[in-house]
Amino acid sequence: MRFNDTLQAIQTYEAGKPIELVVREFGIAPEDVVKLASNENPLGTSPKVTEAIRAHAHHAHLYPDDSMFELKAALAERFETDSRRIIIGAGSDQVLEFISRALLNPQTSVLMSQVTFAMYAIYAKQQGATIVRTPSFEHRADAFLEAYEKHRPRVVYICTPNNPTGDATPREEVLRIIEGVDAEETLVVVDGAYMEYAAVKDDRYRITPKDLEPYAHAIYLGTFSKAYGLGGMRVGYGIGHPSVIEALYKMRPPFNITTLSLVAAIEACRDEAFVQETIALHFQELARYEAFTKEHGLRYIDSYTNFITYLFDAPRDSSAVADALLRKGIIVRDLASYGMNAVRITVGTPPQNDRLFEQLSAILARD
Amino acid sequence: MRFNDTLQAIQTYEAGKPIELVVREFGIAPEDVVKLASNENPLGTSPKVTEAIRAHAHHAHLYPDDSMFELKAALAERFETDSRRIIIGAGSDQVLEFISRALLNPQTSVLMSQVTFAMYAIYAKQQGATIVRTPSFEHRADAFLEAYEKHRPRVVYICTPNNPTGDATPREEVLRIIEGVDAEETLVVVDGAYMEYAAVKDDRYRITPKDLEPYAHAIYLGTFSKAYGLGGMRVGYGIGHPSVIEALYKMRPPFNITTLSLVAAIEACRDEAFVQETIALHFQELARYEAFTKEHGLRYIDSYTNFITYLFDAPRDSSAVADALLRKGIIVRDLASYGMNAVRITVGTPPQNDRLFEQLSAILARD
Repeated sequence: MRFNDTLQAIQTYEAGKPIELVVREFGIAPEDVVKLASNENPLGTSPKVTEAIRAHAHHAHLYPDDSMFELKAALAERFETDSRRIIIGAGSDQVLEFISRALLNPQTSVLMSQVTFAMYAIYAKQQGATIVRTPSFEHRADAFLEAYEKHRPRVVYICTPNNPTGDATPREEVLRIIEGVDAEETLVVVDGAYMEYAAVKDDRYRITPKDLEPYAHAIYLGTFSKAYGLGGMRVGYGIGHPSVIEALYKMRPPFNITTLSLVAAIEACRDEAFVQETIALHFQELARYEAFTKEHGLRYIDSYTNFITYLFDAPRDSSAVADALLRKGIIVRDLASYGMNAVRITVGTPPQNDRLFEQLSAILARD
Repeated sequence: MRFNDTLQAIQTYEAGKPIELVVREFGIAPEDVVKLASNENPLGTSPKVTEAIRAHAHHAHLYPDDSMFELKAALAERFETDSRRIIIGAGSDQVLEFISRALLNPQTSVLMSQVTFAMYAIYAKQQGATIVRTPSFEHRADAFLEAYEKHRPRVVYICTPNNPTGDATPREEVLRIIEGVDAEETLVVVDGAYMEYAAVKDDRYRITPKDLEPYAHAIYLGTFSKAYGLGGMRVGYGIGHPSVIEALYKMRPPFNITTLSLVAAIEACRDEAFVQETIALHFQELARYEAFTKEHGLRYIDSYTNFITYLFDAPRDSSAVADALLRKGIIVRDLASYGMNAVRITVGTPPQNDRLFEQLSAILARD
């Protein structure tokens, strides 16, 4: 079969190991597995959303309202914007895919930080585009603009807060990058999947779709997967200039989110209290993760997200640590494949974090 | 912004009008709207599936098992095949998208019948490929092979039963097309979204993934959206040679179906009785639709699907008929945009069909 040449360069995304896999591979009971690998909401699904899903479960045979009228209206209200500026994706991932397919081809390049969300590069490679990275995982405007002038990329990705590292970029720095690129040639993607956490931690890092409205060549991406507790429902959004949204719509397949995802996301918009509770618990527990590093002489990246990245120094090896935790039923994300000697740990519930600290202490003591 | 040139040729898919829109536009109460436009299962969602969704609703925050181990095992058992031959999509639509993106580019063409599933052409245009159509909506092997030799398309689409017409292609005719194309150059897609209905109606039209197994250049597509009653959950599949499946996987985004879609599809595989009940009711009601045409001197296309296509003769106009029904709260699919003076009507429940017959009788009498 003659597949497109671009396929040769593509490596598929390695998802965090699911609980089912640990159960199958290590014979650990599902209730004993602690998954701190995929940045899911440790408080689970909002009870109000759970109730809404249950109430609509018998509508699983009905296609969703493909105009997504109600969800877009809810988002427009939350972000003080207009529905025509909004596109809904199956996760903000899918909006990234629309962007890539609408703008990239083998004659173009994309610019991103050294270590950032893996799907930017995967979607770019699917289009045959060239990947350019700045020297650091932090998004530094000087480095971005220097690389911009050299490579003139079609798309610039700013992941703030950054995944999988957890750091964030100040609003002023982000705006400097946006203002420094050619608005006719380049789209700047501000991926705010974890923005709800950064916004609470430090207002200087808070970026809203409204902040980007003066720039027709910038698009804001958000998701219901993290603070809103709907990782499994696959709902995200892009908010930008209507001309950009209209182009992305050409790449959107009909019915790209499920009927129950639509119900869940609309209900989640109404339950802001759950989000605030989530974030409050998170920062309380995050302090314990920071304290743990001091007790054990570890380094970490200051976190603006719902996870924390622990950094190791050789000869201690992140893959060995992650594997030892896995055998105890605790799933974390090894960052070796990102070129880092580090693990990314989702901040869990207090009992989940207790188990992580207990097992990780034992592993570190053994080394 | 410099979008890819291919965007200019793309028209977005016009989904069937949702109930919400009729409520908003015509002020009709939701319970009075009869939607016979999207080929949803008139029996709704299987009660067992509804129960499974309710039992897992509080897991909406958890990403699904991205290996889809259990669902693929269930499908492998149903179709007497191997999990390595299976890829899951957000509807079989998404598998069509993977195929298009893995194989098509502006130097390629695709071959399909005159009137067939709209997404084949939309996905092909997204890749800049050229669309070639045979002269009739029926899939005739002679016409396909003649066009094949002339255009050497990279992908050939056989939609059987065909949507939006409702006819089907005999297995022998499909195999003749598959055997007549160059296995090194071309993938033949057999889209069996409505196959469960055709298989019951006439065994000569029944095609299974097993039938295609001898052909590495053929792929079978199926869905949970129709007979299995899960249109809103977006789960479909492709079954083909492992080398083809592996290539399509490179275009699959992670977590491409939701956690609850996975639960629903696995449970639906276990509830074959619901599917058989669905099909039995369907053929009982389909007979009434055929009888209605005789009473009113209408023509129709013999249906192998869960819908029937009524053909009109000028001056009677399908758009006027569809619009008149809409104003009475009955949504059907006008096929004018497909170049046909026809409407596609999903066969509903007995009371839904009663209302359709009553209103359509009145409209036809008025003309």
